[in-house]
Amino acid sequence: MTLLIYGDRVSGNCLKVKWTAEKLGVPYRWVQTDVRQAATRTPEFLAINPAGQVPTVVLEDGRPLAQSNAIILHLAEGSALIPADPYERARMLEWMFWEQYSHEPYIAVARFHRHLMAKSASEIEPRLMERGHAALARLERQLEQTPFLAGEALSLADVALVAYTRVAHEGGFDLAQYPAVKAWVARVEAELAIAD
Amino acid sequence: MTLLIYGDRVSGNCLKVKWTAEKLGVPYRWVQTDVRQAATRTPEFLAINPAGQVPTVVLEDGRPLAQSNAIILHLAEGSALIPADPYERARMLEWMFWEQYSHEPYIAVARFHRHLMAKSASEIEPRLMERGHAALARLERQLEQTPFLAGEALSLADVALVAYTRVAHEGGFDLAQYPAVKAWVARVEAELAIAD
Repeated sequence: MTLLIYGDRVSGNCLKVKWTAEKLGVPYRWVQTDVRQAATRTPEFLAINPAGQVPTVVLEDGRPLAQSNAIILHLAEGSALIPADPYERARMLEWMFWEQYSHEPYIAVARFHRHLMAKSASEIEPRLMERGHAALARLERQLEQTPFLAGEALSLADVALVAYTRVAHEGGFDLAQYPAVKAWVARVEAELAIAD
Repeated sequence: MTLLIYGDRVSGNCLKVKWTAEKLGVPYRWVQTDVRQAATRTPEFLAINPAGQVPTVVLEDGRPLAQSNAIILHLAEGSALIPADPYERARMLEWMFWEQYSHEPYIAVARFHRHLMAKSASEIEPRLMERGHAALARLERQLEQTPFLAGEALSLADVALVAYTRVAHEGGFDLAQYPAVKAWVARVEAELAIAD
């Protein structure tokens, strides 16, 4: 059985899984699952993932797995996308947990409201923008020092963080203020062969 | 050099690291870092963790690491707290990422406002309570099926999820509604020898 990826193309979390599968040469079938059409609320989908969230994958053996970062860690096990050095691997995980707690809830949520729900800038909570800029400033400080987040080479930390950072402008964040982040986005897009 | 844990005793995220070190028999020194006294905003602390968050550890070799779940994954590497089976390990990670995104922001935040900031029930956003109950209901469904979150044995998923679940009542969540969760909390507390 081929890997099934239940995902929504507008979701950075879902694209992380697509890019990782492609980078690793893992064959997959994309099952477009439109969150705004409530495709994650059907009994069929909830039987696969009771949390009702995408991405969710069904592995080759038929078992389901959810949470974008858990999925890409599973797919990439033993590959060069996970550093062999225990400390570098731990730093990669640090960035991945930080992404879900301190980056996605601001950068991705602002973009959801502005770009996908067509809200105006004045309708966005100031706190979202403030914390989103704090997250971008933290990325900038790291990327002034190293070409990739966990060090010298591309890792899953870059896959996880680039997903919403590359579309941060759709949430009203101007990446021109963060030149090291902007250069890193281009580097990671090239490494992952992201076309659109 | 002994492992240094910069943590705040009232923070479940920090206690995860303490419990894991104790379970594994890793010697450590606790550096009490009071968030409400802005001890995470001093230049000294920001030099160790620019994100200004606890827990942060300084490893035996002097290198820092942050994010509770990344820290416990690093400390527990190669131990029985991480399942050897790749799929069970992936499910453990799924719960750990879900905790930071879909559990902690509701259960821990409600408890922070009620218990630590002494707010009344009516001052808590209804959305926080609604999503917190949804998270508890999801745990209940899993724990009706398996004694621990990733299967038959204690793993880091239980360490991560018990931290705020065991004090959910301090945020206004009545665990009597979730009997499987309540029994699991007692099991995990016994396994981790949590005394207080």
